[in-house]
Amino acid sequence: MTEPDWIAVDWGTSHLRLWQMAADGSVLARAESPEGMGKLDPEGYEAVLARLLPDLTGRVPVVVCGMAGARQGWREAPYAKVPCRPPGIGRAVRVDCADERFDVAILPGVAQDSPADVMRGEETQVAGFLALNPGFDGVICLPGTHTKWVHISAGEIVSFRSFMTGELYALLAGQSVLRHSMDEGWDDAAFAEAAERTMSRPASLAADLFNIRAESLLAEPAPGVGPARLSGLLIGMELAAAKPYWLGQNIAVVGADRVARHYVSALESQAVPVVQADAERMTLEGLKAARRGGEDT
Amino acid sequence: MTEPDWIAVDWGTSHLRLWQMAADGSVLARAESPEGMGKLDPEGYEAVLARLLPDLTGRVPVVVCGMAGARQGWREAPYAKVPCRPPGIGRAVRVDCADERFDVAILPGVAQDSPADVMRGEETQVAGFLALNPGFDGVICLPGTHTKWVHISAGEIVSFRSFMTGELYALLAGQSVLRHSMDEGWDDAAFAEAAERTMSRPASLAADLFNIRAESLLAEPAPGVGPARLSGLLIGMELAAAKPYWLGQNIAVVGADRVARHYVSALESQAVPVVQADAERMTLEGLKAARRGGEDT
Repeated sequence: MTEPDWIAVDWGTSHLRLWQMAADGSVLARAESPEGMGKLDPEGYEAVLARLLPDLTGRVPVVVCGMAGARQGWREAPYAKVPCRPPGIGRAVRVDCADERFDVAILPGVAQDSPADVMRGEETQVAGFLALNPGFDGVICLPGTHTKWVHISAGEIVSFRSFMTGELYALLAGQSVLRHSMDEGWDDAAFAEAAERTMSRPASLAADLFNIRAESLLAEPAPGVGPARLSGLLIGMELAAAKPYWLGQNIAVVGADRVARHYVSALESQAVPVVQADAERMTLEGLKAARRGGEDT
Repeated sequence: MTEPDWIAVDWGTSHLRLWQMAADGSVLARAESPEGMGKLDPEGYEAVLARLLPDLTGRVPVVVCGMAGARQGWREAPYAKVPCRPPGIGRAVRVDCADERFDVAILPGVAQDSPADVMRGEETQVAGFLALNPGFDGVICLPGTHTKWVHISAGEIVSFRSFMTGELYALLAGQSVLRHSMDEGWDDAAFAEAAERTMSRPASLAADLFNIRAESLLAEPAPGVGPARLSGLLIGMELAAAKPYWLGQNIAVVGADRVARHYVSALESQAVPVVQADAERMTLEGLKAARRGGEDT
């Protein structure tokens, strides 16, 4: 098998993705593992790389983004501060590995002083989107556990805001009294109605949430109503708060999973035109851009 | 020991409280147990009573309120519908016990069709408060896992609304990324500021929550700031939605624990005068009122 020119790694909290890259930017091999930052001590990272790359013989550059650069990760890569371009390889932190085959560089995340906010990993997706869409000015929405809204101007991250919407959904659907109202279905009309409701009356969230439970007890809602209403209430409230980010803006949603599609449908119901891009592809393009030097080396 | 005249039981989801009552309304003995509805099959309830009342010889009335009357409880006691007085013994459901010492009556909860809402147990606290405060007209707030705001007029529950505020706090403080920002302290100023923030800008909740995490990473907040901000954000949002319930109303907060005191302090900061009453005492007074026949037998 061809020896890779370099290794790209997206090392998140709960899992990692790794690509063996050829010099021309094509992918030779892809691997993933559940050994995310949350499960590793700083000493554990090298062994994971060695296990995922058993055939490697020579020394190879490894470019890492994500939570591996957090304080409790492999090696802290201090945040770049907005306004800034997505950090390139010149801002990366080097790790001295005992295994001399690995020449590891960890990319920093991006922080904002006021309001206090942080990202680690999303800045690389932003870099990938900007590499594929040079000259993009507008707002990139990255749905996830902590959804980010990122304002881009002249190639820089000007400001951003994180919302705990994804984590709230997971906790409420999985562990609250609302778990009894969840099923595998999805009701588009219930989603749209719930999103509309919290967009116009966000304060009622905690009562509207309990109402999902009460309706399960008093009526018999159709399958898919519970999860769609929960998602709609939470995403609608987020859109109400993020309105300065999307109103009259050029919007890109980075993500292609079910959750990202819900954001797109809620935005489109507000007559906001949206382009969508795949999150994993943006991450890889961002790591490639960082490896090329980025714009901020 | 004196044989009790009757037994009062508050049988909730996570635990139960039981009082052996004398004919004059005084308490002969009190017991509690973690054997709540959530841990019992319908067949398990009698054995718990027998274990908590080993010395009982004759047949005795047992009056139960709370989740034991839920569909998944001991025996379903169908909801009374608002507007209604708190249900008395005449509305209770009888259970035929194998152990002939127990003459069990389970009090119903109260439901509302629109918006759909339910309570089981709180109606008995309301009954107790009304028994001690005859003629009370106004709003009773019962802080808890699912905080209730109950509008009382002419001795009736006219309408009510439940908020999942307590459950949201427990999930976020215990299991979300915010658990890293929690400690045993409490900062009054941080609570007041956070409550003020969501009262005026409720939609930003999901961003304000993540901001607690980001500030922990970027600054070093004083002990007590994290829990007080989390509580303030959630209670402030609830107060924004419950404003029609408390604005210009006569308010009683039933509860004496830390959480109830936070509701009182947030309401008082809005220049709303509040009386406070102890929740356990109101429950027992409510069971006594139901036993006497209540107003709706």
